[in-house]
Amino acid sequence: MSLLFKYLRVHQVFGANTNVGKTILTSALVRASAAKGNTVYYLKPVSTGPMEDADDEHVQRFSGAHADTVHSRCLFRFDDPVSPHLAARRAGKSGVEEVSVPSDDIFAKAVASHIRDCASQDAHPAHMYVETAGGVHSPTLSGTTQLDSYRPLFLPVVLVGDSKLGGISSTISSYESLLLRGYIVDSIMLFRDEYYRNWEYLVPYFAERGVHVIAVDAPPERPASADENFRVTEKYYQEIVPPSLQGDIFEALRHLDECHSRRLTEIDSMPQRSLDAIWWPFVQHGLVKGEKDVNVIDSAWGDYFSVYNAHRSSQPATARYEPRSLLESQFDGSASWWTQAVGHAHPTLTLAAAKAAGRYGHVMFPQATHLPALKLAERLIRHGPGKGWASRAFFSDNGSTGMEVALKMALRAFALRQGENLDGMQRKKLGVLGLKGSYHGDTIGAMDACEEGVYTCEWHNAKGYWLEPPTVAGRNGRVVISLPPAIAQVTESNDTEVYTGSFSWTYDVGERLKTPLADFYRRYIERTLSKYWEGGDHTLAALVLEPLVMGAGGMIFVDPLFQRVLIDVIRGVPTAASSQPSLQWSGLPVIFDEVFVGLYRLGLRSTIPFLGVNPDISVNAKILTGGSMPLAVTLTSDAIFQAFISDNKVDALLHGHSYTAYPAACEVANETLNIVEKMASGSEWSDARARWGCSDAPEAREKGVWSFWDAQLVDALSRLDTVTEAMALGTLLVIKIKDEAGGYQSHSAENLLNALRLAVDSEQISAAPGGAPFGINYRTLGDVAYFMLSLNSSAATIRSVEDRIWRTLNEGSSAS
Amino acid sequence: MSLLFKYLRVHQVFGANTNVGKTILTSALVRASAAKGNTVYYLKPVSTGPMEDADDEHVQRFSGAHADTVHSRCLFRFDDPVSPHLAARRAGKSGVEEVSVPSDDIFAKAVASHIRDCASQDAHPAHMYVETAGGVHSPTLSGTTQLDSYRPLFLPVVLVGDSKLGGISSTISSYESLLLRGYIVDSIMLFRDEYYRNWEYLVPYFAERGVHVIAVDAPPERPASADENFRVTEKYYQEIVPPSLQGDIFEALRHLDECHSRRLTEIDSMPQRSLDAIWWPFVQHGLVKGEKDVNVIDSAWGDYFSVYNAHRSSQPATARYEPRSLLESQFDGSASWWTQAVGHAHPTLTLAAAKAAGRYGHVMFPQATHLPALKLAERLIRHGPGKGWASRAFFSDNGSTGMEVALKMALRAFALRQGENLDGMQRKKLGVLGLKGSYHGDTIGAMDACEEGVYTCEWHNAKGYWLEPPTVAGRNGRVVISLPPAIAQVTESNDTEVYTGSFSWTYDVGERLKTPLADFYRRYIERTLSKYWEGGDHTLAALVLEPLVMGAGGMIFVDPLFQRVLIDVIRGVPTAASSQPSLQWSGLPVIFDEVFVGLYRLGLRSTIPFLGVNPDISVNAKILTGGSMPLAVTLTSDAIFQAFISDNKVDALLHGHSYTAYPAACEVANETLNIVEKMASGSEWSDARARWGCSDAPEAREKGVWSFWDAQLVDALSRLDTVTEAMALGTLLVIKIKDEAGGYQSHSAENLLNALRLAVDSEQISAAPGGAPFGINYRTLGDVAYFMLSLNSSAATIRSVEDRIWRTLNEGSSAS
Repeated sequence: MSLLFKYLRVHQVFGANTNVGKTILTSALVRASAAKGNTVYYLKPVSTGPMEDADDEHVQRFSGAHADTVHSRCLFRFDDPVSPHLAARRAGKSGVEEVSVPSDDIFAKAVASHIRDCASQDAHPAHMYVETAGGVHSPTLSGTTQLDSYRPLFLPVVLVGDSKLGGISSTISSYESLLLRGYIVDSIMLFRDEYYRNWEYLVPYFAERGVHVIAVDAPPERPASADENFRVTEKYYQEIVPPSLQGDIFEALRHLDECHSRRLTEIDSMPQRSLDAIWWPFVQHGLVKGEKDVNVIDSAWGDYFSVYNAHRSSQPATARYEPRSLLESQFDGSASWWTQAVGHAHPTLTLAAAKAAGRYGHVMFPQATHLPALKLAERLIRHGPGKGWASRAFFSDNGSTGMEVALKMALRAFALRQGENLDGMQRKKLGVLGLKGSYHGDTIGAMDACEEGVYTCEWHNAKGYWLEPPTVAGRNGRVVISLPPAIAQVTESNDTEVYTGSFSWTYDVGERLKTPLADFYRRYIERTLSKYWEGGDHTLAALVLEPLVMGAGGMIFVDPLFQRVLIDVIRGVPTAASSQPSLQWSGLPVIFDEVFVGLYRLGLRSTIPFLGVNPDISVNAKILTGGSMPLAVTLTSDAIFQAFISDNKVDALLHGHSYTAYPAACEVANETLNIVEKMASGSEWSDARARWGCSDAPEAREKGVWSFWDAQLVDALSRLDTVTEAMALGTLLVIKIKDEAGGYQSHSAENLLNALRLAVDSEQISAAPGGAPFGINYRTLGDVAYFMLSLNSSAATIRSVEDRIWRTLNEGSSAS
Repeated sequence: MSLLFKYLRVHQVFGANTNVGKTILTSALVRASAAKGNTVYYLKPVSTGPMEDADDEHVQRFSGAHADTVHSRCLFRFDDPVSPHLAARRAGKSGVEEVSVPSDDIFAKAVASHIRDCASQDAHPAHMYVETAGGVHSPTLSGTTQLDSYRPLFLPVVLVGDSKLGGISSTISSYESLLLRGYIVDSIMLFRDEYYRNWEYLVPYFAERGVHVIAVDAPPERPASADENFRVTEKYYQEIVPPSLQGDIFEALRHLDECHSRRLTEIDSMPQRSLDAIWWPFVQHGLVKGEKDVNVIDSAWGDYFSVYNAHRSSQPATARYEPRSLLESQFDGSASWWTQAVGHAHPTLTLAAAKAAGRYGHVMFPQATHLPALKLAERLIRHGPGKGWASRAFFSDNGSTGMEVALKMALRAFALRQGENLDGMQRKKLGVLGLKGSYHGDTIGAMDACEEGVYTCEWHNAKGYWLEPPTVAGRNGRVVISLPPAIAQVTESNDTEVYTGSFSWTYDVGERLKTPLADFYRRYIERTLSKYWEGGDHTLAALVLEPLVMGAGGMIFVDPLFQRVLIDVIRGVPTAASSQPSLQWSGLPVIFDEVFVGLYRLGLRSTIPFLGVNPDISVNAKILTGGSMPLAVTLTSDAIFQAFISDNKVDALLHGHSYTAYPAACEVANETLNIVEKMASGSEWSDARARWGCSDAPEAREKGVWSFWDAQLVDALSRLDTVTEAMALGTLLVIKIKDEAGGYQSHSAENLLNALRLAVDSEQISAAPGGAPFGINYRTLGDVAYFMLSLNSSAATIRSVEDRIWRTLNEGSSAS
């Protein structure tokens, strides 16, 4: 949670280096704030060294007349004049609070808690200054550097610049490091050193960048004697913070006050301005009732948004006194449309993007190459979802365009093999074979690969044929496969429900191929298709599947056995034959739309090992860039690629967006895969797998059925009387709410779970940044509610969200 | 140009701060290189202060045994121990070279020239160290900071870290500032200070980030006497660079050698690896003959790529001695598919992206808002291409998706107004009215808004009707409008060519509406449409135009009068009526596809003031993000927006990509518009406008016909016997080459201009980074060659490219 209060202005003071005058300028600000009649809180969370100890007393010793309105506090203090991480390690803990070296989490919570305490005092107007230790990147107690460790609190910044030789460089670099973490830098302050005159350079430099720089007279040399030092220092403070309330420090104060009030005004204006200027995707504006329906996202960190809650708050926004932070933590329960992998604003990804943007900007891709794209292509083909079958990577901008590329590839390959058998008109009548409930993206071509439905537009023309698939779900504590009536009819029992006993067995496609159900599926598919081939509208030219889970169609868990048998039938492979990888496609080109399910979303690098068969074409996007920026990749076998080769330019795949394979996204993708692959073999994942009874052997990692969500919770949810089905896989938890109507237009899930959106302060210490109460932002698909984690969501967050879901649904159930 | 030589390894030494031991460690590296038998070049381009003067002699004084193999040089020297920009300003120039304070351009060229001189010495293996002054962001002579001023040379970096208190912070921040400019940081070296032990922290910190850190024993305290200093320092060097050739410095040397050879191996492997793994957009792989057809882009800066030329070079790559840089400058003559606005890798855009990524990452957009998107939406509507008519911004990922959104909007608005008159089947038969030669993007829906052609795929279904438009061109020094025969027939003279006298008159649509040609256009359009309405395949539901220039269709300059009359006819407005802005659409919704032509590509913020009528929907992309990352915006009038409002979710515009309005791109777009709008009112643009006889009055800035290209060149080109037409507008120069066949499959333009691709060292000092010879990368559309600038291309670059084009074509003409 970031902290923003109406009557308490908080600034965090960072230094461009150690010993640049951070404490002196902070003390001056404290004095000036007090002189202007504010209550002032001075917080130095960590202090090291006897010298800084003394500095720390600047405020208290010299605040004189304002002693009653200035409140000073240090949370962790060390005598050793070294970096805090070293001080903590060397001296052992000897601080004010009796805790051992705190983790980043505890540290941020301790600071946030103190700030909230101050905000809850009925003293206003009030100013607070939080002084950091050393430079922006000096390590804190845990070893994390200052700006990363304070980032969860997202306080606006005063950067104290360096006025000495070399100080221009360290000031600018420090500013850039703050920027890379998204910090709001309200002001840069530095001493007016008349010899090096850094401020002369920095004022216009930062003016061009919209940042205010204030130079303040430098302090005198430090005299040897303590008494003399006291006298000289006090005189200096009197000069820069004069009783006239004029001068540079008061100018700085005025500017910081203005920044604070401008920020309050701006954020308060955002809901209405957004209602006036923005057309949201997938939103019926007619149902948006007003400002409180607008989620104003001020920043984000990890799994949490920081949102402006003034319009949501029960207290009127005009209240004279508002002790709660105007910003509230909100768990990003849909992983921002299924994109998040390593949490919002991960510094490693920001740096990766910056590195590639700084080296290349964008460079056009036709017949060109650059390292980020080349490395990504090779990696995806050799060690990623293309492993063992793909030979080429084709980049585009999003899942929808990636699927259009896939369709163009498949149609061409099919048409080429048909040769003269297809005339121009017949080519236009090519269609796809798919499953009911499929969704492949929003562009019209991708939509045409699906049935007509609520999502489709005037031009929609469903090109193909879609089978109704059997689905998997947890229902009343049992794992059940629901067979559509048409399939049930070909089974011996005609039952529409098949109980499989366990998830792990349900997903063991290899074993299940030997069961009678596989034969029933085959029989049903063969019959249905031969009927279609006789009189269907389209010549089927590609099989298009979302493996395991159909996302936008309603989080439908398809029986993987059915998808496998379907592929085998299309390829003319007998049931239970060993899947020989072939470089040629047979029957129809098979496209896997892994945009949602791929790259560990379901706990697995790819869904391919699960089904035990390779596609001819696959599409990945969303997680590919770790949840930061758009990029899609269409992988293909060499046989598909060869269909476009000739000596004629018009035979090429004439598709390409301006920013195809732009370096920033490719570099971010490489970095994301580095991070995720490391996590995937780490202990947190092993533990989660173990809780689902899933082995940690290499093979199980490729095919195991497990989730970050608790197995017992899923079981318990599936038994609730408001719930028809519950399922979990990887990061995904799906709960289907009882509703007569059902479907996309249902509001049942939304209505039942609505209370989750409120920030609740129920836990002792919340899992949200700074330990703040948090609400849950989630999306529903009609009667289906789903919750999605990042690949690195903390156990505390997961347990806490589970608890909220359980209590909300359980209460809803009892009440019903 | 960045510099990379086979037998000369060059490293640039940056400091994390001033006084961190840069000169000492560089000297140690110089000594070690020499000790290992290399010729060594030590270049300190700028030196300030008597102390550094002495430091500078470290190399010479202490290189002893290797005096003949170590070559030391300083280009600019000042006595004043302050930042170079101050030294230069204070002392006046008193340097080694007799030039006044050099511009960044001259400075980079001086350094590059010296490096090239060293590389051309037949001495190998050789090492070179280029030592910078102060910290990474210390200003150079011109005031630009070190890492920005050296960036055009893109040399790999040794960063000397700071071993003192606070040094962890300055080292990390400096590294991040280097990263933001894309620098390759091969190594971080710092002193092993036993008290602060920064290296202990930095080694694992950077290991995690893949950067090598080497700690070296710290030098002794500097003794007072010069003799003693000499003795002590020499002893220190003997210790860290011992005759045994062992120890930390030699380990550093080995690592740098390895980085260099790894880079050579890697870049040399890139062509074949790319041929093996990448499927390029719009490329017929069957025509790619081998490694030399792969453009390996090592980095980019401003208007230039830096490309690997080993496979292109006339000299065999195996030559023992290769004095030329393996990297070559290449002018990006198509502005990387029409995206570039402010040059590649512009630091301001990199920082903007980093700032937003650091604050938000991506946050999902439905019913949410964040500052970068909100500000961009408001700005585009109020002060951008939506000024005066648009009420909403809908974001998507690229021009093609932006156009699909526009089509969905128009189709819905039209269908809604038709109401019961349209049944479900008729809705599918809705079509667009457009112009032959249109192109609206690569997705299938956008393609369906165009005629069938080489770009279309199996599923293509041309939905609509396309008129053949009259076009504008310079031909044999005259401005001519070419009328299609069908239009010529309705004129009095039946001539297919109309000479208009001047470009400015041709584009003065307001005046030309009063001419007979306007009436002829109206008559032709009305007749043709009424005939289509009687028996056409589709119910026309939208008018879709690329205003002024149809890009991918062949850079066709459409007569703007024709587009204006067409809009008036569709809207039922009489010819020459004053265009009353209406908030309601009439006739058909009008879509302007400004993806290519918008946002100053043609010198104008928007094409709308030119035509004098507002669209109902417009799409912008490409330049929107300054050429860095994908983003598109569809702007609409309120009337169109209202067509989607109801209390039913399924009536909403159910379109949205995962990364809709991702903060990094929105922030970059805002920053791009800041930069461009500043340039647009600057003197360079005024000068260019003046050269085309275009007034600088505010109105003329909105509607003036001018180009960055020279008017006389365009005239002269149009008279060449190999050229049929030449045109220029804004950043665009189009040359149509004579060819019997013509069209997209023609290779005439490519064949005639092919020589441009070679790097030529013809000018005294080239306009490319570091003054390097440069080739020109350009793309053709069949018989059409085009060249495109950024909005800030330097006059030197433009003149130089013009000269190359002229000479190539003029020679081709004489020869033919």
